[in-house]
Amino acid sequence: MPRFRLDIEYDGSQFAGWQHQADQPSVQQAIEQAIERFCGEEVRLRAAGRTDAGVHATAQVAHVDLAKAWPGDKVRDAVNAHLQMAGARIALLKAAAVPDGFDARFSATGRHYLYRILNRRAPSALEKGKVWWVPKRLDAAAMHEAAKLLLGRHDFTTFRSTQCQADSPVRTLDRIDVSREGDLIEVRASARSFLHNQVRSMVGSLKRVGDGSWRAADLKAALDAHDRAACGQVAPPDGLFLIGVDYPQTFAEAR
Amino acid sequence: MPRFRLDIEYDGSQFAGWQHQADQPSVQQAIEQAIERFCGEEVRLRAAGRTDAGVHATAQVAHVDLAKAWPGDKVRDAVNAHLQMAGARIALLKAAAVPDGFDARFSATGRHYLYRILNRRAPSALEKGKVWWVPKRLDAAAMHEAAKLLLGRHDFTTFRSTQCQADSPVRTLDRIDVSREGDLIEVRASARSFLHNQVRSMVGSLKRVGDGSWRAADLKAALDAHDRAACGQVAPPDGLFLIGVDYPQTFAEAR
Repeated sequence: MPRFRLDIEYDGSQFAGWQHQADQPSVQQAIEQAIERFCGEEVRLRAAGRTDAGVHATAQVAHVDLAKAWPGDKVRDAVNAHLQMAGARIALLKAAAVPDGFDARFSATGRHYLYRILNRRAPSALEKGKVWWVPKRLDAAAMHEAAKLLLGRHDFTTFRSTQCQADSPVRTLDRIDVSREGDLIEVRASARSFLHNQVRSMVGSLKRVGDGSWRAADLKAALDAHDRAACGQVAPPDGLFLIGVDYPQTFAEAR
Repeated sequence: MPRFRLDIEYDGSQFAGWQHQADQPSVQQAIEQAIERFCGEEVRLRAAGRTDAGVHATAQVAHVDLAKAWPGDKVRDAVNAHLQMAGARIALLKAAAVPDGFDARFSATGRHYLYRILNRRAPSALEKGKVWWVPKRLDAAAMHEAAKLLLGRHDFTTFRSTQCQADSPVRTLDRIDVSREGDLIEVRASARSFLHNQVRSMVGSLKRVGDGSWRAADLKAALDAHDRAACGQVAPPDGLFLIGVDYPQTFAEAR
């Protein structure tokens, strides 16, 4: 069966997350339904990032097997039309045939997340649900400096949900940068893979550094504690976006 | 009575426009109610731009007279708290005492608008209601070139709503630039003042140039016709943002 790679944008506000949930709307189910309405097939998607309730994506990647070798553009336009009709804030940016060996989840070699903090006295009128509003002034430079302590290979137990199902709490954080533009603070994090709630847990702790309640040494101590209770705070899902997934060059060429 | 200048951000999607409407929610009324809940006074705001239903603002300016010389920050925070409680997507970015001579509408010397077009095959999942989705490829360079024909002092009858209440259809357009960044086309327009629906009418006609159904000469002919029927199309309100208002330096210093 022809396999398709889907590049997907969504507003997570109206969903209980990427993954199927009993009796709650999920991004996965909404797309699977739209595909069924398009070609009549009951399909099952697999995605690179199983984003939580309220988390958004500008570049989620999933794969699906269909019975026919449809032109990719036809799949994209038809599925988007059904998603629009269903009122789902989900859009397929691209649909393209890929080799059978491509697996959106297991072939991925890198995942990139962006976390947005609106740091001003006034709440957000235009981006409600898409930023974390923190009225108290944060020192983004201090957050950036402290964030470097998280880089590299560590046991991230402190920054991992107690419900995380990964076998190991060890991950390698390849990038974490904090920058400010005007009232917006952006945290960008990249790794081969992340633990459940890892980005939001790191951001919540970095916020403590930003507002002066923690020093960089406190963040280091929290990391070294390997203890979930040492985590500062879990940042809300609103500000989190999956913004990119990397795959080996072989698959890039195949597209 | 002390006069306050309010700098305001809002999501126009949930409102019938800035101005009071019988039985429909307006931005003006939502803020006036929040002020009344804060200080008990029935007030009347006046704004620089009477934006239409669905039109947004990142920098609307209004003024209001209050009985007491409150600290500006206190007004901002209290009114924002009441707006949040009411579920209104409106935020006061700033509130500051100004001289009595300041009038948000009549003192304004310039108004700046941004119009955003999402130009890609896939609809927007993340910015629904905040862009005009045009799936057909537009030539932004051709739009920019043609837009220059609108610069300067003209009778803009073609690009004016038949319901426009201004005495004269003559306006001076100081700036209109069209640029593309990725899938987003931005149109930026500045003038001392605009006619009703002028920006949306100009953008709708420029879109025709972008998709090849009009040449630049057709845009010029439409302008010269001084006839509303010659207008190409009125772009939807979704993509329009009031992004700035200019005032004389004397008022800037007074803040």
